[in-house]
Parts: sequence; structure tokens; C-alpha cells
Amino acid sequence: MMENTVFEEVRALCVRAGECKAGLAAARTEVKNQALCTFAKLLRENRDAILSANAEDLANAKENGVKDTMLDRLRLTDARIEGMARGAEDIARLDDPVGKGDCWTRPNGLMIRRVRVPMGVVGVIFEARPNVAADVAALCIKSGNAVVLRGGKEAIQSNRAIVALARRALAECGLAAEAVQLIENTTRASSEALMQMRGLIDVLVPRGGKGLIRAVVDNARVPVIETGAGNCHLYVHADADLPMALDIAVNAKISRPSVCNACETVLVNAAVAETFLPMLKEAMNAHHCEIRGCERTREILPDVTPATEEDWDTEYNDLILAVKVVDQLAEAVQHINRYGTGHSETIVTNDLSAAEYFQSAVDAAAVYVNASTRFTDGGEFGFGAELGISTQKLHARGPMGLTALTTEKYLVNGNGQIR
Amino acid sequence: MMENTVFEEVRALCVRAGECKAGLAAARTEVKNQALCTFAKLLRENRDAILSANAEDLANAKENGVKDTMLDRLRLTDARIEGMARGAEDIARLDDPVGKGDCWTRPNGLMIRRVRVPMGVVGVIFEARPNVAADVAALCIKSGNAVVLRGGKEAIQSNRAIVALARRALAECGLAAEAVQLIENTTRASSEALMQMRGLIDVLVPRGGKGLIRAVVDNARVPVIETGAGNCHLYVHADADLPMALDIAVNAKISRPSVCNACETVLVNAAVAETFLPMLKEAMNAHHCEIRGCERTREILPDVTPATEEDWDTEYNDLILAVKVVDQLAEAVQHINRYGTGHSETIVTNDLSAAEYFQSAVDAAAVYVNASTRFTDGGEFGFGAELGISTQKLHARGPMGLTALTTEKYLVNGNGQIR
Repeated sequence: MMENTVFEEVRALCVRAGECKAGLAAARTEVKNQALCTFAKLLRENRDAILSANAEDLANAKENGVKDTMLDRLRLTDARIEGMARGAEDIARLDDPVGKGDCWTRPNGLMIRRVRVPMGVVGVIFEARPNVAADVAALCIKSGNAVVLRGGKEAIQSNRAIVALARRALAECGLAAEAVQLIENTTRASSEALMQMRGLIDVLVPRGGKGLIRAVVDNARVPVIETGAGNCHLYVHADADLPMALDIAVNAKISRPSVCNACETVLVNAAVAETFLPMLKEAMNAHHCEIRGCERTREILPDVTPATEEDWDTEYNDLILAVKVVDQLAEAVQHINRYGTGHSETIVTNDLSAAEYFQSAVDAAAVYVNASTRFTDGGEFGFGAELGISTQKLHARGPMGLTALTTEKYLVNGNGQIR
Repeated sequence: MMENTVFEEVRALCVRAGECKAGLAAARTEVKNQALCTFAKLLRENRDAILSANAEDLANAKENGVKDTMLDRLRLTDARIEGMARGAEDIARLDDPVGKGDCWTRPNGLMIRRVRVPMGVVGVIFEARPNVAADVAALCIKSGNAVVLRGGKEAIQSNRAIVALARRALAECGLAAEAVQLIENTTRASSEALMQMRGLIDVLVPRGGKGLIRAVVDNARVPVIETGAGNCHLYVHADADLPMALDIAVNAKISRPSVCNACETVLVNAAVAETFLPMLKEAMNAHHCEIRGCERTREILPDVTPATEEDWDTEYNDLILAVKVVDQLAEAVQHINRYGTGHSETIVTNDLSAAEYFQSAVDAAAVYVNASTRFTDGGEFGFGAELGISTQKLHARGPMGLTALTTEKYLVNGNGQIR
């Protein structure tokens, strides 16, 4: 009974978002950009209100014993609010994909246009970080989509404050405020309801940890884009420039361990293991990063923790690095294709055929040679703001920009053609 | 226990297909084309064997009381086998999407290539038509994908014969025969197992009726492309050229009622209903097509069956046409967006703003002005052979050619870049 009420509540929000689809799809780029700049202005003007809503969230979270790393994600600061505002302005400057396309004429005179159009209603389920609400709302506005947001319960007051400003910005620019909806019920039933909104949600994007993505894949009856699972590897080939390999290992593991493009396992060719592993150990020690090694690693580094099958399979998002010695390139590729999540993988080598084999045989969104996995990012690839990193092959793979929020439509004009 | 065995059996086929992924992905276009032409040659050379396998299927189907329309789909003839062979040769002539892409260099010197690569392993569930096995195998070979086929139980002997030839063609050209797999167990458990092959099946395409597609959407835990549901409409606007509207209505309904791009409902503006409906009735009578009308239709055509809510929602695939009188363009668009399946929709009008509004507001893969919905087809659009018509917005929309069977991959080369 309770669950049915939640279902109806979520359904009502999706219907309201859907009613704004046509208007937003037809909105001119300049009007959408104006709404984004207004949103940025409102974020700056209402900084204090946002911070006080966020303070409420933080107080509740502390009371509920939420741990520090989570509190850090939840916390908004002047700088983070300025970041959200700049993000909206950056998105205003990006190319609008809507209306782009190509056209041709068939021998029978039919004129076919293939144009990019908004998806319609985008659903996004996210966790504790309230800046996701601002980023996603801005990306959806620019791409002409209505959006239904379902954020984590910890961030509900912050999300409310941010969404209210996005809606005000839309209204001030003559667009439908209802195009941005926030599900205020943050029980599990509400996210499950959102996954069932067939015909009302055109695409659902879960942004969060493995558990969330798994739940969505298992339960969703609407189209889904999976994002963000990143069990990424660095393979150090027999001929690798070892100082370069070490720099890349440190950058990929240490620069930001909590993100999806951080490295979780280093695979080392046996030919260089005796030289490279002590260098790696010293650098990781210096950064307080634990190493968990395979048996052959432990022959060279006897005091590291033994790695288990579970370690190969784990995205630590933490200062822990798994290390495995392999005899050949093919063994490294096999390990990566078995345990990787299809996100980002890199090889350090100067051997052309090894590099080509690695890039062709490794099945991942981004496959690097002699560079850090940390570059898998919309900004670093030159796309501007991103909705997330897709680890699936359907529709979008790798960093997803505005185009991933659109689909194609064929417009066909004739003068009485029949077949 | 039984079901577990089926699950393991399907899993084993998927694993074997997966082992061929890398080889097929790396196969040169000329080798894949040679395999397709060999397949065509083998289909022609083994016509008698295919026909006798098909005769066995037909005999079993008759024994099991399968109805005539289904028997017709199941039946192979010399012409249909020649059609399969020509289909494979046509696919050999199409452009290979694999390896195409673009590239750029970032300010930090990273060279990024974005290239199209095969999906990996494609799963296809289809119903009684055995030529689907040949078409799909050929499309997958050309796009460098391994494929796991699960056809209807009625066609099992025909499918076996066809798949054996596809495998022989691959082997004769030095490619892995195991890249084409047929699930010989045709119980419901085998198709359900295929829907669960997360990590082993990169994309699953159901080709068949509403029931099959529904079952896949409800149960699949692998990415799915929905195809083929087509509840298509023709809207006759107030200013329509009525003889043109009639020609289009007859073509869209009558030329091939069983296909997904056939028209199921005609919406008529009240301003022309009194003139147009009698014309429509006469034409449909001449083709033995039943009309089911709304109340206002029945005021003009008193002897037609009343249409119910269910009629608006039904893809007849038969000689039945629903008819509804509407007062305005917007009402027609609302009806279409409510009951349509997002496949193909057409308006007959000479009013530019009506045409533009219809094409912008109707949410479907193909939206026509003054032409028959029957043109939504890979061949008619100029794409060559197609895997099906996608009615979803994710990944592929409308007729799906070879490109829909590929994904992107980012290859990033550096010389030690860290972030």
C-alpha cells in the first residue's frame, strides 16, 4: 500500500516532466543558454541559502553516523558552489547537438533528414554529492531534455535548494520549470519505482557505486546507461621505460584514489619485476598506499599482503594497489579482460607491436599507451562537461557529453510516394 | 535442475562465441567479404539439403497444428534461398564500419583516436522465419561480431542447416567457425538463459512479436535493442489532398499488412471526414479490409464495427484498420504519442506549419509528410540490409544497419603523460 503510493508519486513527477518534453525540445539554443547563465547567477546569489540547507544535511548525516569520506562528498563550500555555477556557464558555451544531422534524397524523390533530437525525459539516480544535481540539470537543459532526479537521502535539503534554483532559472527564461523534477521521497521504493517507468523515462543513468549500478541493471525496465565502475589496470611490459611506468603508476593510483579512472591493479612483466617492484613499493610506501601482491610479487617483496581472487575483482577506490607478475603480454590482456570493468586500461612499452596488440585486444572504453588512466574524462578528452563515463557498449562508451543525451529521428518528406 | 543444465549449455555456447571475438574483430574486410560470398555459394549449392530440413520443420509444424500464416513464414523456397544468398552478397558489398573514426591531439600531446569496433558477441532471439538466421549471421560476420542465435522451435532443422553452412564458410576462409552459434535447445528456459548472460552477450536483439519483446525487456540483464513493434498512424489533415491521402492509406495498410511499418490507425480531421471516410471505406472494402471506427466515424459510416480503447492500442498486422475522427492536428499528435510505438507516423497535408509541427511533436523513429509509412526500411532509406527497426531511442533508432552492430573505443597514445 505504502509502496503503491510512492510509485504513484514518482509516476506523477515523471508525467509532469514528460509534459515539458515538447517545449524543451523546441527551445532555441540561445534561450537554453540564457537559462543556464541565469541558473549560474542564482547559484551565486543564493549561496548562503544553499550552504544552510547543506549544513542541515551535514548535521543529519553526522547524527546518523555517516562516515567522513561520505561527509566530504556531501559537503558544499563556497568553492564548490562557484564550481557548480561555472559548470553551468561552461555548458552554456558548448555546442548544442540538437538539430544537427545530415540529409539525402532517394531515387524516388523522398527527402530524408536524420537529425539529433533530445531523448525526452532523462532519469538520474545519484548518491551523496549534491553538485551532481546541478551538473545533471544543466546538461539536460542544454540538450533539451526534461529530467527526473533522485538523489541520496543524505543530500535532500541541498538538492531541494539547487533544484529550486534550476526551476526558477527555467521559468525566468520562459521555459517550463517542471522540466526539472526532484523525487523528494528518498526511500528505496522511490528509486525502484523510477526504474519501472517504462514509456515515461527514456533513459535512466545511475551515477554511483557498484551496488547502485547492479541494482539498476537487475531491476530496470527502462533503457539504462551504466556509468562509473572502474577496475582499471596498468601493465608494465618487458621493455618498459621504468621511471615512466613508475610515474604513471603513482599518478594513476595516488592522484585521486576515489575516482573511477584510478588504477587498481598493476601487472608487471616478469622480465622487469625484480627491478620495478622495489621501485613501486618505495613509491607506494611514500604515499601510504598498501600493496597486495600475487605469490611471485611476494617472492620479490616478501612483506606485502597476499592478494586473493577478490583483490583482482575489486575497485578499491582507496589507497590499496593490487600487484601481479605475468610472463607475457597475452597473460596481462587476459587478466584485464577477465577482471576489468571495460573502463580504462594502459600499457607502458616502446614496442610497437605490443602496443598495437594491447590496444586491439583489450576490451575497454579507453585503452592507453604510455599515459595515465586518469585522463578518461570529458574535460581531458576535450568534450567539456560530462554526464559520466559509460562502461557499456550500447549508445555511448567512455566520457558522455551532450550528444549522449540525444537520439536520432528520421524526418521524411515526399509528395505522395507509396511503395 | 533441468533449468540449470540449460543455463550451463547456453553459457557454454556464449563462452565459445566469446573466444572468437578477438579473431573476428581483427579480421580484414576482404576476408569477411570472402566468407560472405562463400556462404552465399554454399547456400545455393546446398539448396536441396536446406529444403529437406525445412520440409521436416513444416511437417512437424503441421502436426502440431501451427496456423497457416506461421507456416508461410516458416516455409523456404528456391526463391527464398536465393534471397538469402543474394542478401549475403549484398552485405559483402556494404561499407565495413569497423576501424572508421576520427582523431585529435590534446594540448598535452595525447593523441586520441575514436574508432568503431565490433560489439563483441551479439545475441539474437527470433521466431519462425529461418531466413533471419542467414541474414543475422551475415550482418554479424561483416561487422566483425560473433553471434549466438536462438530461433523458434518450429524452424530448428532449417536453422541448423543454414548455420552449418555459415560456419563452413567461416572455416573455409580461415575464420573461426565457432563465431556463429545456434542454441539447439528451443525451450523457454534457453531464451531466458540467454537474457541473463551478463558479461558474455554484449547486446541482445529480440526479433519478433510484442510478446517476445516484452519478455526480453522484462527479464533481460544484458543490454537490449528493441525492434519491430509498429503501431503506425496516418493523419489526414484538414487541407489534405484526399486522393493522395487515399493512395497512401491503401499502400500503408494493404501492401503488406503483416509488417511492422504497415499502418494500423487512420486519423481524419473532422473538416474532411465526410468526404474522405466514404472514399476510405470503399477502398478498404475492395481489399477486404475491415474498418473499426470511433463514434464520429460511425456517424458517417454507420455500418462499421465500433472501435474500443483496445483497438487504438493494437498492432493488427492484419486486414483491419482503426479509424478515428479528430478536431485538430494537436489531438492527432496526442493520440499518436499516446498509442504509437515510436516506429513510423505520417501526415498528409500541404500546410507547412502543420507539417513542421507534426514532424517536431510526434515522438517516433520516422515521421513522414505526404508519404507512406512503408518506407521505414534499411533498403528504402539507402542503408542496405538491416538487422531490424529499432523503436527505442538508445544506441540506434529506426532501421539498423551494420553501424548499429558496432561501438566506439578510444585509443589514446602518449609518451608518459600524467594528470
